[in-house]
Amino acid sequence: MSKPSIPKGTRDFSPAEMVRRNYIFDTIRKSFQLYGYQPIETPAMEKVETLMGKYGEEGDRLIFKILSRGAKMDKALDKIASGETAKLAEEALRYDLTVPFARYVVQHQNDITFPFKRYQIQPVWRADRPQRGRYREFFQCDADVVGSDSLLFEVELVQLFDEVLTNLNIPDFTIKINNRKILSGIAEVTGESDKLIDMTVAIDKLDKIGPDGVVKELTERGISDQAIEKIKPLFDLKGTNSEVMTAVREMLSESDIGMAGADELDFVFKQIDSLGLRSAKFEFDVTLARGLNYYTGAIFEVKANGVSIGSICGGGRYDDLTSIFGLPNVSGVGISFGADRIYDVLEELELFPKTTSETTRLMFVNFGETEADYCMQALAKVRKAGINAEIYPSAAKMKKQMTYANSKGILAVALVGTQEIEENKITLKLMESGDQHSVSIEELIEKLKQ
Amino acid sequence: MSKPSIPKGTRDFSPAEMVRRNYIFDTIRKSFQLYGYQPIETPAMEKVETLMGKYGEEGDRLIFKILSRGAKMDKALDKIASGETAKLAEEALRYDLTVPFARYVVQHQNDITFPFKRYQIQPVWRADRPQRGRYREFFQCDADVVGSDSLLFEVELVQLFDEVLTNLNIPDFTIKINNRKILSGIAEVTGESDKLIDMTVAIDKLDKIGPDGVVKELTERGISDQAIEKIKPLFDLKGTNSEVMTAVREMLSESDIGMAGADELDFVFKQIDSLGLRSAKFEFDVTLARGLNYYTGAIFEVKANGVSIGSICGGGRYDDLTSIFGLPNVSGVGISFGADRIYDVLEELELFPKTTSETTRLMFVNFGETEADYCMQALAKVRKAGINAEIYPSAAKMKKQMTYANSKGILAVALVGTQEIEENKITLKLMESGDQHSVSIEELIEKLKQ
Repeated sequence: MSKPSIPKGTRDFSPAEMVRRNYIFDTIRKSFQLYGYQPIETPAMEKVETLMGKYGEEGDRLIFKILSRGAKMDKALDKIASGETAKLAEEALRYDLTVPFARYVVQHQNDITFPFKRYQIQPVWRADRPQRGRYREFFQCDADVVGSDSLLFEVELVQLFDEVLTNLNIPDFTIKINNRKILSGIAEVTGESDKLIDMTVAIDKLDKIGPDGVVKELTERGISDQAIEKIKPLFDLKGTNSEVMTAVREMLSESDIGMAGADELDFVFKQIDSLGLRSAKFEFDVTLARGLNYYTGAIFEVKANGVSIGSICGGGRYDDLTSIFGLPNVSGVGISFGADRIYDVLEELELFPKTTSETTRLMFVNFGETEADYCMQALAKVRKAGINAEIYPSAAKMKKQMTYANSKGILAVALVGTQEIEENKITLKLMESGDQHSVSIEELIEKLKQ
Repeated sequence: MSKPSIPKGTRDFSPAEMVRRNYIFDTIRKSFQLYGYQPIETPAMEKVETLMGKYGEEGDRLIFKILSRGAKMDKALDKIASGETAKLAEEALRYDLTVPFARYVVQHQNDITFPFKRYQIQPVWRADRPQRGRYREFFQCDADVVGSDSLLFEVELVQLFDEVLTNLNIPDFTIKINNRKILSGIAEVTGESDKLIDMTVAIDKLDKIGPDGVVKELTERGISDQAIEKIKPLFDLKGTNSEVMTAVREMLSESDIGMAGADELDFVFKQIDSLGLRSAKFEFDVTLARGLNYYTGAIFEVKANGVSIGSICGGGRYDDLTSIFGLPNVSGVGISFGADRIYDVLEELELFPKTTSETTRLMFVNFGETEADYCMQALAKVRKAGINAEIYPSAAKMKKQMTYANSKGILAVALVGTQEIEENKITLKLMESGDQHSVSIEELIEKLKQ
């Protein structure tokens, strides 16, 4: 029999990986809660019609569908066998958390008190070609608020990026912000309003292909030379956010929508200036455009500096998310943390904590039946004190027991032989240093308290 | 446009439900960790061949399969159209956590140090006909240890049931234990070894159909009258575990396998007697047989007393789990918590805590721009102290803001008007009592610390 395996693009997570992933998820979750966001969960499966047509043609192709069953399936196969077409699936796996969230809000609108601040941390599935860092099953971590157009949420979400990534001890990261209205303003004042998408898709690539590359792509996309000349100064805007803003306001002074975007951003800048950030750099990037078709106001992106890993977070405001399900005029703004990329950053910078609340802290070595009986009593006390602990299940060779403790990353072992039982003591051996101490059970608990 | 909906048998979880579910999962998870179990996760999708044939014919029918895509799908459809058969799926959704765990152990056997104590809390999918309390997507919470036949794990798993359910404050519950070898012994001494399955399927129903029902079913299943007469006394064995054991030993004295089962159980009884349990009743139930085909040693079941909800936990020892994937002789023992049923028990007995660490504790009422600026500063301090808090995003009518705070179960609101700003105080209103206090920001933090 050949060794079993899993579908390509999917992953098993071992205990060591799980502990690290949970550290990331727990940090994100706690920060979401600190800001008043509440959890929801939606089913892995949605109806096919809920998902299809929401992610473009490419997206539709990448949606995993669930094969129909029973009589429905038999009928469908009969149809196909006789040359007709037939539906083979009624359910599909969720492709992101945003469309299910929109569906949730519309379906439960009468039970929700708006503004609705929700977070959601669940896996999504995409039949993408697997490659390094791209999986067919991965977690998204989203926080959104819908039912309010208050810019205080833009402020709060910038703080939330800062909160999470500071708590994860990422030493150097930049939160970039822009506003779709600024981009519309640029298209307007350059006389290319009808080519807004083309223009911003090109500008958005500045980081990757440089100014010359962008100019080339703008030309290819049919932007006039005159417009390009006006756009070019944007590529090397430097200085503080307020200096950049001064230049942008000058350029966009004739555009109402552009000035509206500037006003929105200025509100956020003023608030963040006054509140301060814990460790983030905060940068107005007029070329930032991610997901443009979708966002209508603020646009966010976060990058860890000094590592060659793309953006680790994103987000923005969308004015019309729920209208796809028949509920118009519900403004929302949200952010998303890329757990897999954050994992890579923490690993590359060696930022994962050595032990977490999940670590097993103590193992009683098993010297035989009598000793094990004694240890089982001590073990119960240790666990009662809230210390993660266990006993090796049989009186195997010392080396084997120590190998087990080592491989599991256990912090200390308790050695209890005849002498220890007589003296009512425990020999505590710390795994990293090798130090040994003769202690009472109370002293042991004090030493290992997490 | 009609309101969107979700596939039948699936559920959305609202924030109120999520908080309660997380309370259950967190309690289970912490206890698993306390006992040295480590988390793993496996993909939602397994290869079809990994799952098929592992759950019987009925199970095979209930497995959700993923429709193939692209060229593979086109080819399959062509085949069907020309009257041939074709495979339409290569992946399927996991049906339980046990088979994926067995697959995991075999696939990663060279990276695992045995005994391997793992827990896994993930959803599973079954295309069962949905009904009250039965869903097509539900979570399983399993802890298993493989690679050891030490009975200390049976002892530990009984303690773990007790730990989790005591921590959930369930006031009255019974952990039932039996052993497959006792059942084999009964079959042997009654001369019905070849009808072991039939016999135990019938006996297992004692709770539901009573002694007369069991006798009827035994007869229908072809058990001899003589055997039934020998079995009948088992239906009303009463007394302590050791009294029941005395009777069972007497009956099974001629059966080696029966006596082996009795020895195993006696070890567990002795240990549990000596260690004590926090609040569980612990009962030797000679008629307990759940999942018999599967278990080879201990069999566990837990029921909450005084509520008409079936068993809330189960488990047992299996000697041959991984041999289906080509790795024989790996003994294991495991338990499973039924999260949905535990939810129903806690709800029926009103045992859910009113607030958890996820509750938003404070909302700043928004009286306008100036006040909001002041509140944003105070809010940052409150959050820095680790208190979940938010500000209402606009200066809406007081009633609207209070309705929002109420519906979200927020514990207190902070009222900051001109006077409060002048005096550098905050009026703190506790939502439940309606009490108001004029406090400094430090006093507010002290009052709300979680």
